Amino acid sequence: MGNLKDKFTFLQGGVFLGSTDNYVDSWICILGLPLDVTSTFRPGSRFAPQSIRSVSEVLEEFSPFLKRDLKEVAFCDLGDLELVPGRIRENLTRIEEVASEVWKDGKLLLSLGGEHLVSYPLIRAARSHYPELAVLHFDAHADLREEYQGEKYSHATVMRLVAEEIGPSHLYQLGIRSCTWEEWVYGSENTNLFLDHIELPLSRLLPELKGRPLYLTLDIDVVDPAYAPGTGTPEPGGCRPQDIFSALYLLKDAHIIGLDIVEVSPAYDMGNITSILAAKLVREAILAFGPSYQNKMHPY
Amino acid sequence: MGNLKDKFTFLQGGVFLGSTDNYVDSWICILGLPLDVTSTFRPGSRFAPQSIRSVSEVLEEFSPFLKRDLKEVAFCDLGDLELVPGRIRENLTRIEEVASEVWKDGKLLLSLGGEHLVSYPLIRAARSHYPELAVLHFDAHADLREEYQGEKYSHATVMRLVAEEIGPSHLYQLGIRSCTWEEWVYGSENTNLFLDHIELPLSRLLPELKGRPLYLTLDIDVVDPAYAPGTGTPEPGGCRPQDIFSALYLLKDAHIIGLDIVEVSPAYDMGNITSILAAKLVREAILAFGPSYQNKMHPY
Amino acid sequence: MGNLKDKFTFLQGGVFLGSTDNYVDSWICILGLPLDVTSTFRPGSRFAPQSIRSVSEVLEEFSPFLKRDLKEVAFCDLGDLELVPGRIRENLTRIEEVASEVWKDGKLLLSLGGEHLVSYPLIRAARSHYPELAVLHFDAHADLREEYQGEKYSHATVMRLVAEEIGPSHLYQLGIRSCTWEEWVYGSENTNLFLDHIELPLSRLLPELKGRPLYLTLDIDVVDPAYAPGTGTPEPGGCRPQDIFSALYLLKDAHIIGLDIVEVSPAYDMGNITSILAAKLVREAILAFGPSYQNKMHPY
Amino acid sequence: MGNLKDKFTFLQGGVFLGSTDNYVDSWICILGLPLDVTSTFRPGSRFAPQSIRSVSEVLEEFSPFLKRDLKEVAFCDLGDLELVPGRIRENLTRIEEVASEVWKDGKLLLSLGGEHLVSYPLIRAARSHYPELAVLHFDAHADLREEYQGEKYSHATVMRLVAEEIGPSHLYQLGIRSCTWEEWVYGSENTNLFLDHIELPLSRLLPELKGRPLYLTLDIDVVDPAYAPGTGTPEPGGCRPQDIFSALYLLKDAHIIGLDIVEVSPAYDMGNITSILAAKLVREAILAFGPSYQNKMHPY
Amino acid sequence: MGNLKDKFTFLQGGVFLGSTDNYVDSWICILGLPLDVTSTFRPGSRFAPQSIRSVSEVLEEFSPFLKRDLKEVAFCDLGDLELVPGRIRENLTRIEEVASEVWKDGKLLLSLGGEHLVSYPLIRAARSHYPELAVLHFDAHADLREEYQGEKYSHATVMRLVAEEIGPSHLYQLGIRSCTWEEWVYGSENTNLFLDHIELPLSRLLPELKGRPLYLTLDIDVVDPAYAPGTGTPEPGGCRPQDIFSALYLLKDAHIIGLDIVEVSPAYDMGNITSILAAKLVREAILAFGPSYQNKMHPY
Amino acid sequence: MGNLKDKFTFLQGGVFLGSTDNYVDSWICILGLPLDVTSTFRPGSRFAPQSIRSVSEVLEEFSPFLKRDLKEVAFCDLGDLELVPGRIRENLTRIEEVASEVWKDGKLLLSLGGEHLVSYPLIRAARSHYPELAVLHFDAHADLREEYQGEKYSHATVMRLVAEEIGPSHLYQLGIRSCTWEEWVYGSENTNLFLDHIELPLSRLLPELKGRPLYLTLDIDVVDPAYAPGTGTPEPGGCRPQDIFSALYLLKDAHIIGLDIVEVSPAYDMGNITSILAAKLVREAILAFGPSYQNKMHPY
Repeated sequence: MGNLKDKFTFLQGGVFLGSTDNYVDSWICILGLPLDVTSTFRPGSRFAPQSIRSVSEVLEEFSPFLKRDLKEVAFCDLGDLELVPGRIRENLTRIEEVASEVWKDGKLLLSLGGEHLVSYPLIRAARSHYPELAVLHFDAHADLREEYQGEKYSHATVMRLVAEEIGPSHLYQLGIRSCTWEEWVYGSENTNLFLDHIELPLSRLLPELKGRPLYLTLDIDVVDPAYAPGTGTPEPGGCRPQDIFSALYLLKDAHIIGLDIVEVSPAYDMGNITSILAAKLVREAILAFGPSYQNKMHPY
Repeated sequence: MGNLKDKFTFLQGGVFLGSTDNYVDSWICILGLPLDVTSTFRPGSRFAPQSIRSVSEVLEEFSPFLKRDLKEVAFCDLGDLELVPGRIRENLTRIEEVASEVWKDGKLLLSLGGEHLVSYPLIRAARSHYPELAVLHFDAHADLREEYQGEKYSHATVMRLVAEEIGPSHLYQLGIRSCTWEEWVYGSENTNLFLDHIELPLSRLLPELKGRPLYLTLDIDVVDPAYAPGTGTPEPGGCRPQDIFSALYLLKDAHIIGLDIVEVSPAYDMGNITSILAAKLVREAILAFGPSYQNKMHPY
Repeated sequence: MGNLKDKFTFLQGGVFLGSTDNYVDSWICILGLPLDVTSTFRPGSRFAPQSIRSVSEVLEEFSPFLKRDLKEVAFCDLGDLELVPGRIRENLTRIEEVASEVWKDGKLLLSLGGEHLVSYPLIRAARSHYPELAVLHFDAHADLREEYQGEKYSHATVMRLVAEEIGPSHLYQLGIRSCTWEEWVYGSENTNLFLDHIELPLSRLLPELKGRPLYLTLDIDVVDPAYAPGTGTPEPGGCRPQDIFSALYLLKDAHIIGLDIVEVSPAYDMGNITSILAAKLVREAILAFGPSYQNKMHPY
Repeated sequence: MGNLKDKFTFLQGGVFLGSTDNYVDSWICILGLPLDVTSTFRPGSRFAPQSIRSVSEVLEEFSPFLKRDLKEVAFCDLGDLELVPGRIRENLTRIEEVASEVWKDGKLLLSLGGEHLVSYPLIRAARSHYPELAVLHFDAHADLREEYQGEKYSHATVMRLVAEEIGPSHLYQLGIRSCTWEEWVYGSENTNLFLDHIELPLSRLLPELKGRPLYLTLDIDVVDPAYAPGTGTPEPGGCRPQDIFSALYLLKDAHIIGLDIVEVSPAYDMGNITSILAAKLVREAILAFGPSYQNKMHPY
Repeated sequence: MGNLKDKFTFLQGGVFLGSTDNYVDSWICILGLPLDVTSTFRPGSRFAPQSIRSVSEVLEEFSPFLKRDLKEVAFCDLGDLELVPGRIRENLTRIEEVASEVWKDGKLLLSLGGEHLVSYPLIRAARSHYPELAVLHFDAHADLREEYQGEKYSHATVMRLVAEEIGPSHLYQLGIRSCTWEEWVYGSENTNLFLDHIELPLSRLLPELKGRPLYLTLDIDVVDPAYAPGTGTPEPGGCRPQDIFSALYLLKDAHIIGLDIVEVSPAYDMGNITSILAAKLVREAILAFGPSYQNKMHPY
Repeated sequence: MGNLKDKFTFLQGGVFLGSTDNYVDSWICILGLPLDVTSTFRPGSRFAPQSIRSVSEVLEEFSPFLKRDLKEVAFCDLGDLELVPGRIRENLTRIEEVASEVWKDGKLLLSLGGEHLVSYPLIRAARSHYPELAVLHFDAHADLREEYQGEKYSHATVMRLVAEEIGPSHLYQLGIRSCTWEEWVYGSENTNLFLDHIELPLSRLLPELKGRPLYLTLDIDVVDPAYAPGTGTPEPGGCRPQDIFSALYLLKDAHIIGLDIVEVSPAYDMGNITSILAAKLVREAILAFGPSYQNKMHPY
């Protein structure tokens, strides 16, 4: 196992609470993916990974709900993958390559977007390592369009791309509260689409998902704009942060092999509350998934 | 049936998502009423209609909860009625006249305030066309004062004016969480005033309201300031957006003949989340009430 | 009974809704404690008392939930105690002295922070007058560290200081959702620490607390940052304002002898919603605790 | 000489830096006039006097440019005159009465708006005491309309009202950079209207104004919006704060008998810089005009 | 001469102060070009045209500096050209086509960006109608890169594209205060690049430019961020609004055939002061250039 | 020469534009000093170094005014010195030690505050290496108090401490526009205090300062709040950014051995314009002072 850091360029912009820079010995890697289709200063979600790391220090390393501490989990923060803003497909390829290396090295990958489109290369890479992969998708929007503004690769088409990649029956969409008619028809007939709720359908799905390798993609706008104003497409009527925490706790013994948190947009984040929420989701995810992942990967 | 647009002057400031400018064939008319008692640039709610229209494009035209699409409903956006800020009573008369025309033309009128005072002439006009009218009032404040700061026509007296106009027993006030002692006494003894809750009392009232023509006036501050910070008089402890959506869905088969959404104040609306919420309420109202209204008005 | 105002200097910065400046005849005193460890203009919580008073006029004097009006309660607003920002311990002593006088004069003391450290001298003074005192602590954070950044007197150690002062078994901590491992161990083994919830554990504790003199310290960050963005250490996943109001109503017949509301930070308070929430908590506390306190202190 | 405070009601909202509440012995009175035509919470300029007082503590009491200290001038802060928002003309009368008393008592009146309309009753009162009065008007806008939105009494007509009251040739308008064609014609032909510049025309006018009693009305929007964003009608291309300070210094030996600073709007004042600027203008005006006024009124 | 509106689709989002919708009889057309490379809600400069129109009502129609009124100039507001965000080159072509039509119809085109890249197709179209064209460029940045982030068509390369299109000696760059070493070398050797200052070099260039058809491209960031915070790439040390107004007045008798104002970014525009500045630049440009353009095009 | 990084702990939070982490070979070191007297999240100036680094990427590495590029100067960014917020004097000692090492190693030290108090240990260290040291002080405030709020070590006393350390005749204070009477007297009689202006007095002082080692301390509030709103004590009437740039250019051939930029406060920095200004001051300082410093230290 060589070191990922020799193969790709990562930009540093602070480090996440309690993380190390020791890739080799980590079970979990945090990876920033500052992709948005804006070519200039002050874009939307490009600065999210830096912002999430920067505010993470307001949190404790211990979770009283999980009764675990970040000190118990070996995890590193790789920094932000160097991307070339103008070259979408080249960047998608690069993301897929770096993710592929991380899974080849047996680690859980926790990516911070950037826009939702980053999930597509991440899930492609995940599936090539875990052919039985199922994808959990928490989002306000179904993201099932065939194309958006003439573009096939977009934040609004990403779950359609994923559905076609992994087969739509392996895609579980929860918390959805906005879509077009066409997306509704496609989702109803092909994917597993659950309107509005997360915890209830998830608890019912757990037996069906048991043992399968799972990838979780979490668009921060699944939470109501009151709790997460810093996002690109706020959609009123969302859930509370607690509902997402509960979902993570439900998945504590599941076989999560990767996750991403996307669409945080610091420029619209009054008082940084969206970034702090994302940072807390990162901490709870590390504490919820890290130990069981380690056990599953190294069972004895 | 002549065309309303020839009789009054409307100012354009964008159009609501999916609307047309075809008044004659519409079932529903959106009408902006930029009334606030401020005579200068940067008032409170005067810019709300423009702001709500402008952000509406972030939404889809389809509602997955109602399984309906704006394309199925014929509705137009009239723009903002031209008002003269300094002339309150003259403006109230003008609002009443235009509303009266819309109801004479058999359409459902969906008005965007502006301050809450606009509801008074709207309801006067509604009642002259629908003598059996009952009024549903969702608000944080009872608005039942006899006068406010020496003024009888005010956002704080509007529901007292309405009560006197239609008879207080035809006024149903839900979600109220702030009032004076005098308002409490008057409301308890005369109107139907329900503290704090909306969905529960509404579901109990439905049999009593069945078949009656209903007018719904919705002050955005009924929702908690966390979800609707852009309003003139934020009152902590309010409901969630979902509670209002649920109320709209409960009323899906009722005979709603008009509604207004008032007191959105864009200048205080961090990240536009209040305007987006108002826009989604408009969409859901159109989809919930439009088809059944059309059926009731043209039953065969 | 001499007059407190002759013994200490108070700075005026507006007055709370409906309050008088008649200390002698009041049952309840509002006292601003603008302590934060910042020595310059634009600190965090130092301006909170002024801000809370200033916005209080947006509220009514009547509470429809308690069916009481501020006119029924004799209460005064003392203004802000003059403090010397650079001298922490001297200030703690001064706060303890003024609080002690208020309790000697038989009044309920309602203090507005400032930072949470102010609760320590307040509770010391309370206990010297009420040796049976129990302390209710509503907070996102346990505040049980032994020291913080080398400092024993800090907003992060304040409840440890209190626990040592009154005995940890007399400390009831509710709504806690963030702490270190060490705080968790200490709290589990020594204080009465309840994770996340407030209303449920409180209703179960009521029999146990019945008749005891109670002091309530309320860190505004117990409420979710969506509702209370204006605070120094926002922690996602908190309760709603209603949950705190319900707790106050549960305590209506308890023997509350003092309370404080701390850590409001106006500079981060978008649209003033945190200050308005704090002002409403003050009003509801006055209306909930004032009459029963008066009855307990002057039973016939 | 009776005490003004017994004849009118003043609301306290903090006090200006270094002021006393001793009306009788003061040479200068600060008076807040929270008039705007908005009847509810969160209006425009109604909160300006409170905001200006509140931020004044960031300033020193000494001016290194004038080499004078506020301790050398006897001045009081009367607080805000109680007004009834809905009753414009009644309020104008009340302002005129209180101002008239102040001048009868031989004091310099320094008023804080509120909207510009307050200058009309102030100048009426001034002229009845000083028939030789000339008015200096620093503003971005000429405010010379005959009526505005059907209203004769408005912030946009105030200088026309003043011109008609005192005779237009006694009105000197400086710094003007916005007006209608009609205002331009009226101003050119009747008043003394100087485009854009302040210091240069003022220095040329000084001999002509020498010895006359002068009233200065200063609309904060004469300063560029970069320096004074908190105002109702921002007009790009204005002067710097230094240009106004220089004008005050030029007037140091003039016979200023009153001045007002109007149209500060705290809700739009990012980082309070407009209120701080207004507070510094108040301090410099007190230090520049107070001693010479005292000398002129009590020459031996 | 057919009507442009039949050939292209324009979106309405309000109209500019005093404009009509009569294209045929106008001398000047305002055209919104909402191009930015962002594919989603809340981009940078895409909403600038709407924002500039919306705030324009705060201004008067008369300019006291030019002594002209908008009523004297026949101009229309075409609205925003419909663009497809994802298709950069297709959009550039469309912009060029519509601009070409406007010049073919003998009108002065005043475009509102959008990002600076829109100037490239505008100037291409201008040059095909006016082969003698010279381009005036007011900007903080030289925008002379050969490529930016792998992209040849970018806001950072736009003036290099223009230089290559029209010949660099026909490009006059004023107010520049930021560039790379390579841009500096290229600019010094090829274009006419003037550091920092605008008015002085412009007054010296006037004889050289006399009689030539001129296109003016104005990046709002040429003004200091204090006056124009709402822009994508703020660069400290810029000029004041007055410096740009003076430049427009200097060009009053020049043969301006088109201009654009680009890079206004409403999301970062505290208190809308950047949009108001842009609106005033539009008004002054119409009043300064309109009459002389009309005279030049229709000399007798 | 050992490596500084082995002796002290530095925290990384991004790096300044174009800097390396090679301390040994650098001529100039950037050092973050996140000192403010606040012990918790969200203090004032503690986050300034991170913020300045983060926005620095919006700038080019080349200065067209100096015709130099950051690539020509060997400079490193050490990150932020680890401090213990509660321990003021211990921190002052630590700052002095690290600065002392840097000067022992023959480098120019460029420090980023943090509050102004950091200048005291920096200048103590500088003087022990350069006994002939003169200090240039650009600030809105004289900072010459003997104590402030009972504290001798404060941002308001820092220049008095410096004056006593180096002898007041070696202190040159420029741009001052606020002080108490006592500070004015002390400054007039002891230091070299110049009101308001910078460039003019500096150009006159240059012969007197020629050849002496100079330390420059720059409080960002010397610039007007319109250009630098993100600061703790905004004082209206300040200079423009250009005035500071001009001063740096005047000092291009002087023997600057260190400088600091203090009192940037990101929480109040609308649109980051203060941080961007500070970053540009850093760049221009590196380019102006680096080459001549290198020549002076290694003359052949």
